[in-house]
Amino acid sequence: MNIPNTSKPRIVVIGGGFAGISFIRKLRKSKYQVVLFDKRNYHTFQPLLYQVSTAGLEPDSIAYPLRKIFRKHKDFHFRLAEVETIDPQNQIVKTTIGSLTYDYLVIATGTHTNYFGNKSIEANSMPMKTVPQALNIRSLMLQNIEKADITEDPDERKSLLNFVIAGAGPTGVELAGALAEFRKGILKNDYPHIEPHHMQVHLVEGGERVLSPMSEHASAKAKKFLENMGVVVHLNTLVKSYDGKTVTTADGKTFESATFIWAAGVTGAPVNGINGSALLEKANRYKVNEFNQVEGHPKIFALGDVALMKTDAFPKGHPQVAQPAIQQGRRLASNLMRETNGKAMRPFRYTDKGTMATIGRNKAVADIKNLKFAGLFAWVLWMVVHLFFLVGFRNRVVTFFNWTYNYINYDKAARLIIRPFKRVTVS
Amino acid sequence: MNIPNTSKPRIVVIGGGFAGISFIRKLRKSKYQVVLFDKRNYHTFQPLLYQVSTAGLEPDSIAYPLRKIFRKHKDFHFRLAEVETIDPQNQIVKTTIGSLTYDYLVIATGTHTNYFGNKSIEANSMPMKTVPQALNIRSLMLQNIEKADITEDPDERKSLLNFVIAGAGPTGVELAGALAEFRKGILKNDYPHIEPHHMQVHLVEGGERVLSPMSEHASAKAKKFLENMGVVVHLNTLVKSYDGKTVTTADGKTFESATFIWAAGVTGAPVNGINGSALLEKANRYKVNEFNQVEGHPKIFALGDVALMKTDAFPKGHPQVAQPAIQQGRRLASNLMRETNGKAMRPFRYTDKGTMATIGRNKAVADIKNLKFAGLFAWVLWMVVHLFFLVGFRNRVVTFFNWTYNYINYDKAARLIIRPFKRVTVS
Repeated sequence: MNIPNTSKPRIVVIGGGFAGISFIRKLRKSKYQVVLFDKRNYHTFQPLLYQVSTAGLEPDSIAYPLRKIFRKHKDFHFRLAEVETIDPQNQIVKTTIGSLTYDYLVIATGTHTNYFGNKSIEANSMPMKTVPQALNIRSLMLQNIEKADITEDPDERKSLLNFVIAGAGPTGVELAGALAEFRKGILKNDYPHIEPHHMQVHLVEGGERVLSPMSEHASAKAKKFLENMGVVVHLNTLVKSYDGKTVTTADGKTFESATFIWAAGVTGAPVNGINGSALLEKANRYKVNEFNQVEGHPKIFALGDVALMKTDAFPKGHPQVAQPAIQQGRRLASNLMRETNGKAMRPFRYTDKGTMATIGRNKAVADIKNLKFAGLFAWVLWMVVHLFFLVGFRNRVVTFFNWTYNYINYDKAARLIIRPFKRVTVS
Repeated sequence: MNIPNTSKPRIVVIGGGFAGISFIRKLRKSKYQVVLFDKRNYHTFQPLLYQVSTAGLEPDSIAYPLRKIFRKHKDFHFRLAEVETIDPQNQIVKTTIGSLTYDYLVIATGTHTNYFGNKSIEANSMPMKTVPQALNIRSLMLQNIEKADITEDPDERKSLLNFVIAGAGPTGVELAGALAEFRKGILKNDYPHIEPHHMQVHLVEGGERVLSPMSEHASAKAKKFLENMGVVVHLNTLVKSYDGKTVTTADGKTFESATFIWAAGVTGAPVNGINGSALLEKANRYKVNEFNQVEGHPKIFALGDVALMKTDAFPKGHPQVAQPAIQQGRRLASNLMRETNGKAMRPFRYTDKGTMATIGRNKAVADIKNLKFAGLFAWVLWMVVHLFFLVGFRNRVVTFFNWTYNYINYDKAARLIIRPFKRVTVS
């Protein structure tokens, strides 16, 4: 695959998410050769994916070319490829474009959608973990509203305008809020023949509160915000099946819905080749020590969502969000540089910078240390933090302009069905 | 399809391009019901499509939701559907979502790519008439450069970095220029292991000059600009075939190329149902009189690229560009309003506002009345005119920001392979 062999030790990184890029960024002036594999040529800023789904932003606002991030690195090589398997004995990764040896391997593959083995949901629901998936949701939503405007059958119209989201984590809550705003800002203007109240947004959650990783105060406020915006929140409700037409819950409720979005779970996305006790099968995450070393594999590290580091403060591992991934990436980079200088590695310590979620216009919740915010201040804070963490000056400006425009005009400008979504229904 | 029957006469418009939207816009305060059919939910600003192909802009800069354009119209109805056939006898259009009667029918369906019956070119080349096609070109270009960086076979690398464009009209010239800029600004930074001169851009034209609809001065200047940027221009050269690997010309030249873009011709896109002498088969355009009435069909009008109005000044019809379409749309709208007021229609008179094309940074050509510009002034003029004609304040700001950013940074920020392009090769 045309990677030069040099005298420098080679670090192979799998995955250009938050963990992978924060790790490589910090290695800019190191004495390593770095090879990054990703099956996409861009980094995805996942916290804002839901705005791509709901026509608020285009992909270029939240995606950033991986090669561009590392332009100024000297011995850096990006390869657009998927890693198929790891051979830890011979220190080789096998990919769709050939094999490569490594001195150190960093696995930062993140998570993928977890359907918990439910085939009907996997076949018919809309996941939202990638940019193409987010664009599929945008297309399907707009296609269904177009169809609703055409049909003369009230049952069909109801189903086409019924949006059901499973999972009230940040993704589900933010999506539900954005859909409620779409109804308020766009529907009455662009579709004057549809009564806004005919569009319904249902948020279905198995647990007893929304945003369960946050404080009870945040959960209660977020639920109230959602309900004020007209989202119907169903707590303690598990979805049992979806055949492409009807969402059925474990307690026998049914929703006729043409748009069912699955945001109810993720599972680690490990790579083939490391088995045994190093891979915790239930979570699909690698068991790592405080240096992010995979158990039994001193040359292999796992970072972020796919790593599970048990500590006293986090006996079940760190939350699968951006901050632990970013911090672990940085820590590992400085540890490897320490090692080349003959110094001992330092254990990872997580700094909790807080959690936040936005529900809609002027409405967000934030837990920061012992402070709990809800409303306008939290919303402004949410925007500032997200702009700050977006990669690149250009993406910040484009996103900020779009937010300002959408805010002033109660608009979502990217309501374009570029690639119509075609469902393949399996019952 | 849920269109109310009112006492107002109904105008059915097919196609939301330049002609269709300028026609409907002018009818805002008319006494007609207007129904617009389009198979896409957005208007495409075709003159800037090539910037979507070459990663300079995202679709939301050049596409605009059709419903949003006509938000303030009273009895206006958009329907996302394709018209299958017209029944002029019974004044009915049959569409993919049902049939509808009309009082007046306006056909503004534009053109589609013309392969002149060449099956190998149709099967294997990349056309660029729609947003998805432009995104396909972007994906293929980036995929091929990624592959070129990986391969160790020099012949394969050469083919992957060989970009061949057939047709030196405005689309071909602008694409060739943008690819040359991509090589200069992006390649050396993002792909340091590829020598920029290994990427070649060939522009192949059957006629004896580039930009043949423009003045000889503009053609000569544009050719010189292209050559200064490193584009290889082949005049008097017809492409005979492309099997997915090799472009072969009529005079026996061959180019090994993995990316062959076909911009060498368009043909009218008429709708089934109107035949006989009203449809000029060679051009696939409707023969219209000076009121844009289709010959033999007083209630049916054709506008823009799909109409052919022979006048003394334009014995072969008007050029198939935006201005005649926009002007015909406006004229027809005021003519129909005159008719309801019992006034006679006025014949269409084309006002030639000039022609322009951009080749690259600070390089454009413009023919305006008897004035001929080339270079920086023409380039600034080109930008101002294109920003002015973009629909909507937001799209203008986003486009202007992207241009400024790309200009300052020699960058094209949207180099994202969102949906990888998969070729189905037919030899």
